[in-house]
Amino acid sequence: MQKITILIHCKDRPNIIASVTNFIAKKDGNIVYIDQHVDREQNIFFMRLESEFSKESFSADAFRDAFRINLADIFDMKWRIYSSARKPKMALFVSKYDHCLYDLLGRYNSGELNLEIPFIISNHLDLKPIADNFKIPYYFIPVTKETKAEAEQKQLDLLEKYQINFIVLARYMQIISEKLIAEFPNKIINIHHSFLPAFVGAKPYHSAFKRGVKIIGATSHYVTEELDAGPIIDQGVTRVSHSHSIEDLISKGRDLEKIVLANAIKLHANRKVMVYNNKTVIFS
Amino acid sequence: MQKITILIHCKDRPNIIASVTNFIAKKDGNIVYIDQHVDREQNIFFMRLESEFSKESFSADAFRDAFRINLADIFDMKWRIYSSARKPKMALFVSKYDHCLYDLLGRYNSGELNLEIPFIISNHLDLKPIADNFKIPYYFIPVTKETKAEAEQKQLDLLEKYQINFIVLARYMQIISEKLIAEFPNKIINIHHSFLPAFVGAKPYHSAFKRGVKIIGATSHYVTEELDAGPIIDQGVTRVSHSHSIEDLISKGRDLEKIVLANAIKLHANRKVMVYNNKTVIFS
Amino acid sequence: MQKITILIHCKDRPNIIASVTNFIAKKDGNIVYIDQHVDREQNIFFMRLESEFSKESFSADAFRDAFRINLADIFDMKWRIYSSARKPKMALFVSKYDHCLYDLLGRYNSGELNLEIPFIISNHLDLKPIADNFKIPYYFIPVTKETKAEAEQKQLDLLEKYQINFIVLARYMQIISEKLIAEFPNKIINIHHSFLPAFVGAKPYHSAFKRGVKIIGATSHYVTEELDAGPIIDQGVTRVSHSHSIEDLISKGRDLEKIVLANAIKLHANRKVMVYNNKTVIFS
Amino acid sequence: MQKITILIHCKDRPNIIASVTNFIAKKDGNIVYIDQHVDREQNIFFMRLESEFSKESFSADAFRDAFRINLADIFDMKWRIYSSARKPKMALFVSKYDHCLYDLLGRYNSGELNLEIPFIISNHLDLKPIADNFKIPYYFIPVTKETKAEAEQKQLDLLEKYQINFIVLARYMQIISEKLIAEFPNKIINIHHSFLPAFVGAKPYHSAFKRGVKIIGATSHYVTEELDAGPIIDQGVTRVSHSHSIEDLISKGRDLEKIVLANAIKLHANRKVMVYNNKTVIFS
Repeated sequence: MQKITILIHCKDRPNIIASVTNFIAKKDGNIVYIDQHVDREQNIFFMRLESEFSKESFSADAFRDAFRINLADIFDMKWRIYSSARKPKMALFVSKYDHCLYDLLGRYNSGELNLEIPFIISNHLDLKPIADNFKIPYYFIPVTKETKAEAEQKQLDLLEKYQINFIVLARYMQIISEKLIAEFPNKIINIHHSFLPAFVGAKPYHSAFKRGVKIIGATSHYVTEELDAGPIIDQGVTRVSHSHSIEDLISKGRDLEKIVLANAIKLHANRKVMVYNNKTVIFS
Repeated sequence: MQKITILIHCKDRPNIIASVTNFIAKKDGNIVYIDQHVDREQNIFFMRLESEFSKESFSADAFRDAFRINLADIFDMKWRIYSSARKPKMALFVSKYDHCLYDLLGRYNSGELNLEIPFIISNHLDLKPIADNFKIPYYFIPVTKETKAEAEQKQLDLLEKYQINFIVLARYMQIISEKLIAEFPNKIINIHHSFLPAFVGAKPYHSAFKRGVKIIGATSHYVTEELDAGPIIDQGVTRVSHSHSIEDLISKGRDLEKIVLANAIKLHANRKVMVYNNKTVIFS
Repeated sequence: MQKITILIHCKDRPNIIASVTNFIAKKDGNIVYIDQHVDREQNIFFMRLESEFSKESFSADAFRDAFRINLADIFDMKWRIYSSARKPKMALFVSKYDHCLYDLLGRYNSGELNLEIPFIISNHLDLKPIADNFKIPYYFIPVTKETKAEAEQKQLDLLEKYQINFIVLARYMQIISEKLIAEFPNKIINIHHSFLPAFVGAKPYHSAFKRGVKIIGATSHYVTEELDAGPIIDQGVTRVSHSHSIEDLISKGRDLEKIVLANAIKLHANRKVMVYNNKTVIFS
Repeated sequence: MQKITILIHCKDRPNIIASVTNFIAKKDGNIVYIDQHVDREQNIFFMRLESEFSKESFSADAFRDAFRINLADIFDMKWRIYSSARKPKMALFVSKYDHCLYDLLGRYNSGELNLEIPFIISNHLDLKPIADNFKIPYYFIPVTKETKAEAEQKQLDLLEKYQINFIVLARYMQIISEKLIAEFPNKIINIHHSFLPAFVGAKPYHSAFKRGVKIIGATSHYVTEELDAGPIIDQGVTRVSHSHSIEDLISKGRDLEKIVLANAIKLHANRKVMVYNNKTVIFS
């Protein structure tokens, strides 16, 4: 039994669903999940579909080729077909904050995450003992103004060497360069510690305290060139009051950050996110 | 342009989705919404589908007949096909509490609800002025031990006369008889003022206060013979603390009741709810 | 039995609590509620206190005088003492949206609000039938560029004539002038249909849709000269997804607006809000 | 500078607050936090107070004695006075589930928890490597029908030897005996994986799935003799839908369990919880 996941988006027009489901039926596939969405403003059609194939002779590559010719080219689709056999590989970037790292490695060890973490990159040595405890390689790549280009090249080399599929910035406190973003478009997940678009940039808990908001939040999003302005994957919030100090906001926020980032990682790793027009469609 | 909504459930087996979408394509329909669910424990397949037909010659009745022969009989489906042309008719049952009534009539007047309210039934006269303000007929049908059967017959006569599709108990403080439940299976929506299955029965806010819970809730569900045990449509919760008295819980609960009941009504009226095994599938 | 509520804020220094509680004990008062807060950044002390006096001879005015001399002057307090005997008077300003109006008048009629609504002001005639139903005077004061000053004078005359204590803008679609704000400092409550400080200004649901947020919100705040930047009283949020259109956001947002505005009104009317540095302390 | 926390509850009567605050003022203490609550149904008064003493000569023991004679005996108070100098000691009991353990040890290492964890007890060896990583002693005490009494004695010996103040059952899958409960009254914190009082006992996620609830929860509570019926400290909830399998509920529930348990531990360790009539007063 082989299982594939298909993600499609294209200009909306009649008969896409029937054409795709028909195609799969002819290939002896059994659709076990289908969900679709139409953005009526932009007239864009989105679909996510999981199908099982029980025939010995099924070849994912042959299926891809047939799909391209019979469907993708005709409907002018943007599409991806993933085999469930391969787990995505995720690189973890961290700096000094340890809460997201502990949380993710705990989940990883428990088998909760459907992915592999070949290594951790950090611009500091502080969190190396945690990586050691969890027996995950930890690459210390310091970043200074002078070494920025060199450091980035080291990162790119590692990402290539380990064939990394996507990157997670678990409170990594460095700006990601255009080059790295261009190499991993909509494949770098950041956790920002505010309810975006409120409090973009540095020290959002301080800004939230100053504004006197009654609810704080955290936002996981794909990194784009504009700071904290990429497509939002998930958000979480929690109530606060005048009695909470900035330190209280930071402490309460940590729980939000952990959960919102973990959610985004799971959605991405399970191929449930599609991106267009700087927004996401989440098929959960 | 005509639009229909199809709800299906049946034993899961391969090719249902492809067969249905293919059938609609052959009838020149354009699928604008499809969602599906499989209960893997029970091996039951569920689907909700909206399709538009632009041909002048399209007949919903002919479509129903063809659907029955070509699909429903073959897959042994339980199915319903609704035309969007007809708004469902809803009867409102109330007693003395006015908050759900104000809320629903406010929404109704604003055009937020896709349904008709031909009349209100009550076992008390208290809320008649509100019905009068909103210019909706108000039938006062008192219920006593002696008159219970007679009262129920009056209710049934009204429900039949106005061709009511479903009933909403907006804090109606009378037990609904087996007969009425049998006439409107999964078509009577109740709002219970607790987070079911906690605090079944009378005075749930008092029980919640006594137990010292930190969160209270409200639950909208279809009425079945067993008290407060029918299929759950929606639930809502809000935080409380030791500082809240029973009166505070009642006051905070009112806002939950209003929203949770309104949500359930909208889901039902828009044909987004399917019921099986005393549970609901909500295609929202 | 008379009951008073005392609100205090001043520079923090030792013995304020003991001095105040002692003073009340000497006046034969029984403290039934006390809560306090210290803003450690600004070194400001806040207290809210409810006290009951059972002696026939108790005079709120005499108490106020003694409080001023013995406590307020010494600690350089900003303070208010309210008698529970007097309900605050609230003026409702509306335009064309009816959901907050229905909600508030429903609550008012049910006795849920501890206040009086002497009249409604609107720059449109659309909602007059609702005011008529609820038998509340409705003053139609159209506002155009030319008549703005004159219209405002009419408003001020009404506010004075009815001895209004605070104003609620229930989706009133006009900018409030500096003059009115100056007359009612921290006494004009607005409901903004976004999670402030995100999406300040017009059409926040459209902006939220465009940005692709996964949670929308509503914010009740006091009106200050800067648009949507006044002290926040309460906020509420609800989850949304890619499947929601702008119309869906507007519809879901209505429920948030109703509840968040009603919460703010109750907090204000029950003298539970203190304002300083453009923030609120909420003693709930 | 010394700081103490005072917790009081007693029959409500006039002048308690003034008497206590006056007493502290006379001892040259500065009250930095005061909160109080009256259960009007039971006529019980509760207060939590933090006070700082800057005099060299201040003695917490002498203060306790004076408090007893001048206040506690007169008002017939149940009271506790804690010095902030001493961190409470917490014993962790675990079985095979690791998510709460990872979460708590991560928080512990980050300095988020104001307590000490001298050791971990488990009836299985599975989680020993985690304890080793975090360098916390791990006592493997297997429990069988035959060895139950002996195992419990070993536990009691360890609890005494390390002078443990309270116990946390982080998904410890054994019934706690009456003897242990009697030794640690309202000092054993359990995390139950449902929204109590719904789904008491084993396999609550399975029961929640079967009932078709739309929201699941977790509850932290003090252990009493009756199963899952002790005083509730905190609860958390999250939305679920028909599309979630039992495994999904378990996975989503883990995040609730972690946060709700951590919240309860923080509240308890910071002396913010008072218990009476099988309920809690939380001064947060």
